[in-house]
Amino acid sequence: MAEAVAPARSETRSLVCSERTGGILTLTLDNPPANALSIALMEALKAALEEARDDAGVRVIVLAHGGKVFSAGHDLKEMTAHRKDADRGRAFFAETMALCASLMQTVVRHPKPVIAAVDGVATAAGCQLVASCDLAVATANARFATPGVNIGLFCSTPMVALSRNIPRKQAMEMLLTGEMIDAGTALSYGLVNRVVAPEELNRGVMQLAETVASKSPLTLKIGKEAFYRQAEMGLAEAYEYTARVMVENMMARDAEEGIGAFIDKREPEWRGE
Amino acid sequence: MAEAVAPARSETRSLVCSERTGGILTLTLDNPPANALSIALMEALKAALEEARDDAGVRVIVLAHGGKVFSAGHDLKEMTAHRKDADRGRAFFAETMALCASLMQTVVRHPKPVIAAVDGVATAAGCQLVASCDLAVATANARFATPGVNIGLFCSTPMVALSRNIPRKQAMEMLLTGEMIDAGTALSYGLVNRVVAPEELNRGVMQLAETVASKSPLTLKIGKEAFYRQAEMGLAEAYEYTARVMVENMMARDAEEGIGAFIDKREPEWRGE
Amino acid sequence: MAEAVAPARSETRSLVCSERTGGILTLTLDNPPANALSIALMEALKAALEEARDDAGVRVIVLAHGGKVFSAGHDLKEMTAHRKDADRGRAFFAETMALCASLMQTVVRHPKPVIAAVDGVATAAGCQLVASCDLAVATANARFATPGVNIGLFCSTPMVALSRNIPRKQAMEMLLTGEMIDAGTALSYGLVNRVVAPEELNRGVMQLAETVASKSPLTLKIGKEAFYRQAEMGLAEAYEYTARVMVENMMARDAEEGIGAFIDKREPEWRGE
Repeated sequence: MAEAVAPARSETRSLVCSERTGGILTLTLDNPPANALSIALMEALKAALEEARDDAGVRVIVLAHGGKVFSAGHDLKEMTAHRKDADRGRAFFAETMALCASLMQTVVRHPKPVIAAVDGVATAAGCQLVASCDLAVATANARFATPGVNIGLFCSTPMVALSRNIPRKQAMEMLLTGEMIDAGTALSYGLVNRVVAPEELNRGVMQLAETVASKSPLTLKIGKEAFYRQAEMGLAEAYEYTARVMVENMMARDAEEGIGAFIDKREPEWRGE
Repeated sequence: MAEAVAPARSETRSLVCSERTGGILTLTLDNPPANALSIALMEALKAALEEARDDAGVRVIVLAHGGKVFSAGHDLKEMTAHRKDADRGRAFFAETMALCASLMQTVVRHPKPVIAAVDGVATAAGCQLVASCDLAVATANARFATPGVNIGLFCSTPMVALSRNIPRKQAMEMLLTGEMIDAGTALSYGLVNRVVAPEELNRGVMQLAETVASKSPLTLKIGKEAFYRQAEMGLAEAYEYTARVMVENMMARDAEEGIGAFIDKREPEWRGE
Repeated sequence: MAEAVAPARSETRSLVCSERTGGILTLTLDNPPANALSIALMEALKAALEEARDDAGVRVIVLAHGGKVFSAGHDLKEMTAHRKDADRGRAFFAETMALCASLMQTVVRHPKPVIAAVDGVATAAGCQLVASCDLAVATANARFATPGVNIGLFCSTPMVALSRNIPRKQAMEMLLTGEMIDAGTALSYGLVNRVVAPEELNRGVMQLAETVASKSPLTLKIGKEAFYRQAEMGLAEAYEYTARVMVENMMARDAEEGIGAFIDKREPEWRGE
């Protein structure tokens, strides 16, 4: 069983399929049936994200999934197998949590916008992954939960991302009850940006991704980084910081080009510098 | 009049009625007509909450009210009576505010989830009490306001809880106008989780409470504490902290039992350890 | 062209029209066609706000606009003209951003509530100005965007205000796509308090302003300042701070008057002390 739950790390890349369409890189979770975030899958996804970091051809990243489940979170069988370790699994659990936290922060710190495309269930760390993305598009098939409380393991890391997306009492309801919310509820809470028909998901996501991909990649990088940094500051500090960011942004070639094009009523040509 | 507004502290416990149904402790505010948060009531409620802290039989606490008012906030007559003190009431006001802040934080820091059941008006510190609970169920009779501005006393402590529940401009509208919002508006703002028909309140609250009470009490305690602590941290610190929390949670007996039961498709048996 | 885009600073006051109705000061942006936030306009608005700070006759400030645009943000022609400076504009851009950040914080730190009245497009720093106000009323003509990303200049300072008003994913969608949202969407996100028919805007805003203006100006000042300060604190610190604020507020004459009037069932008379 250890084989089944913990494939050799050299094979890990096949757990995440990469596909490139124009500037849009789609990373598809492919670890059936539940797209469990095993060590191998998390490493594969993190590696794929890191590879895309310096690839100038990638403007926007879409996080998609095969099967009916976006991701059901950590691989419980993999974790349980390590209860037989001499330390009852402690070291392995710590490794899992550290890798998961690192993966989620790789999404947030990534210089390119990341969009989740959710056509099924996203629970626990799977829900966290959606919450960690910059944008999310869901279908009516999408449902979300942080059900760790049902198995004695509170969704304490998922709630870091969740509680930075949705209001406090609604986050607490999901965390304390473990119950599913549907796509419409997720939209009303602010967990996703749009809900589309299942057959429209691909088109809807690609349209959104293309809109974002048409912007200057340098500008997106500057802005995304500044967004999450200023969110952790007080008002005065946030203004001091972002005012500096704006000045540097103004001095960049793409801002000069973009503003010039706007004034001249022509299309800008980005160079990402 | 001092008697009427400030009953001897030894009688205070009767201002809060306790009732236990299974693992659910219902604390009912009983200080007619407005359930004013007098010193006596606040002490009684705080004492009841503290008593429940170490009572293994209590899994979830419901905060309910007799009469048509959940609570109209501080006892203005009690406070006004102290304007005759040598210090014009300053020491008494400071005592009141310190006790109130301590009570609200007792709810937030409590190891057991606290659910407000609101079937009437909750204003000022009464609104704060609802906002301080982890969850809230309201009926169409419920209305909420922070009307201190109408009497020259801005709801500065209530807004600490309110502004951590609802968006900024909506909080400011309540605070600056002092006007009531109805239950539906409170739901749309995120101040309450559910709105039910008045005759369904008891059933709705008990259902929600039972759902939460069915979880491992240790897991609830770990998760609730971590939720409010990580909410005050930056992202990196929050992940570092919650990753540690998750590892400790994994090592607990209830997580091993819960995950094992999930894999074996059986019901878990919690021991709270 | 420099003349057209950068009028002599001595003329700046005409860019903002002041009108007083009772305790309500309406400041109307008047820099057609786009109410661009040129240095001159920002200085004029900041000066008008500072003048109103110590004017006891002013209870509430309304920020309105002439024409079809609330404000389209910074004056791009003015900024572009400075690309010819020896430093390629760096010093001027830094001056612009510092002034803008100072203006926005003047709104937030102002002792009197500020209400935006939006009957048209508010984009970039114009959207930031709406987000910086305490309250906002919009009409169906109102639309909002942070479109800097379209011209290579991410709305990094606007997002400081925006992200403190609306949920994270919705803010990110506005920032990454640069697309407009309509008034109804702005209401659902929490960016505005009310949406009214265009012909009702004046009445709706004045009604709201009069409601707020009827309160004790001292109480409003105490409460508004405390609101934004406590928003940046952890829970324990926020309660410690606001409890002190409440005690000082209780000792003020207007609270004694307001609470006395409430108990006596009469109208209070504020003295602002």
